[in-house]
Amino acid sequence: MRKIADSTVRRLSLYLRYLEEFETEGQATVSSEALATRGGTTSAQVRKDLSFFGSFGKRGLGYPVAELSERLRRILGLDRRYRVVVVGAGKIGSALVQYRGFRQRGFDIVALFDSDPSKIGRAYDGLVVRDVAELEQALRSETPDIGIIVVPGDQAQAVSERLVQGGVKAVLNFAPAPLHVPESVALKNVNLALELEALSFALASR
Amino acid sequence: MRKIADSTVRRLSLYLRYLEEFETEGQATVSSEALATRGGTTSAQVRKDLSFFGSFGKRGLGYPVAELSERLRRILGLDRRYRVVVVGAGKIGSALVQYRGFRQRGFDIVALFDSDPSKIGRAYDGLVVRDVAELEQALRSETPDIGIIVVPGDQAQAVSERLVQGGVKAVLNFAPAPLHVPESVALKNVNLALELEALSFALASR
Repeated sequence: MRKIADSTVRRLSLYLRYLEEFETEGQATVSSEALATRGGTTSAQVRKDLSFFGSFGKRGLGYPVAELSERLRRILGLDRRYRVVVVGAGKIGSALVQYRGFRQRGFDIVALFDSDPSKIGRAYDGLVVRDVAELEQALRSETPDIGIIVVPGDQAQAVSERLVQGGVKAVLNFAPAPLHVPESVALKNVNLALELEALSFALASR
Repeated sequence: MRKIADSTVRRLSLYLRYLEEFETEGQATVSSEALATRGGTTSAQVRKDLSFFGSFGKRGLGYPVAELSERLRRILGLDRRYRVVVVGAGKIGSALVQYRGFRQRGFDIVALFDSDPSKIGRAYDGLVVRDVAELEQALRSETPDIGIIVVPGDQAQAVSERLVQGGVKAVLNFAPAPLHVPESVALKNVNLALELEALSFALASR
């Protein structure tokens, strides 16, 4: 398969959300224009995005909602469930564990870790915070696919290496530090302070 | 000023973090190589990034830590404080309000809103959740610079329009829907489920 840009994957996720709403409403077909509105793009872009993955629908009739959403779920790897561990049980880490959107999409958080004795043993939605010293043991028994890192920046690389060493194939990094992972490991970064700084930069550059 | 890419702004933020650590340690100069490590890039990229904003340091001596961090704070608009309102007091919204990293960086959350009667009146770190019906009134009295949207996708555009109408000049959107804002308004999107889906896509495409 050709290398697909992150921005394309992002739009596919948004198209899928819209298709699922249409499915719920019992609508059978949808135009590329309608999908474009939802994805914040143009109908030409929609057709281009979908053409990466073969042909869908018939000219003039729009896309078949049920078929296209099933295809998109498969393309996005959402036709299965993923096991996720979260390292860091601070405000953001504990909020993530309680975020229902993850489970709805097939991401099951199976373990939550912290090194702070005052956090270890607390429970969030039934998930008890475990000592990060037990991480290796837990990775062997839980065999997670994805690790979410929500620790201070100076601890993130070490945690990442332990996760990768333990078999994690994808990392979502919330720590304010760039991580280095082997090429075989997928990595996405989310940094809330950096997003705000990008806004302050925009405000300052006016 | 030339248009600066988002990825450049992101690296500047990371360089600044490193410089501030060096300042704390009392280090006077730093090499482009050291900044590159922190920014997850190369020393050539560091020199290029900084050259956008004039000349810094002397060849062979590295960059002066205090001067460069002050310049970066000014470039990033971090030499002042920002007033921020958050709309949506769910798990993520309430975690954001309690996230210390924002205040440390100059972002003061001055108001938090929700439409759910069971959430209105609750307090997070001393900030009481207000009825979103009072949003317009609050925007007039609090005159925030930045609005953070953490509401369901189908409500996000309407909230965004109310914020912009009320004078907000920058929006950070956590809702799983693309927002349309006037060109004069800065917009950044953070979508946690989409980030995980990008990882599931990467795992599925192997």
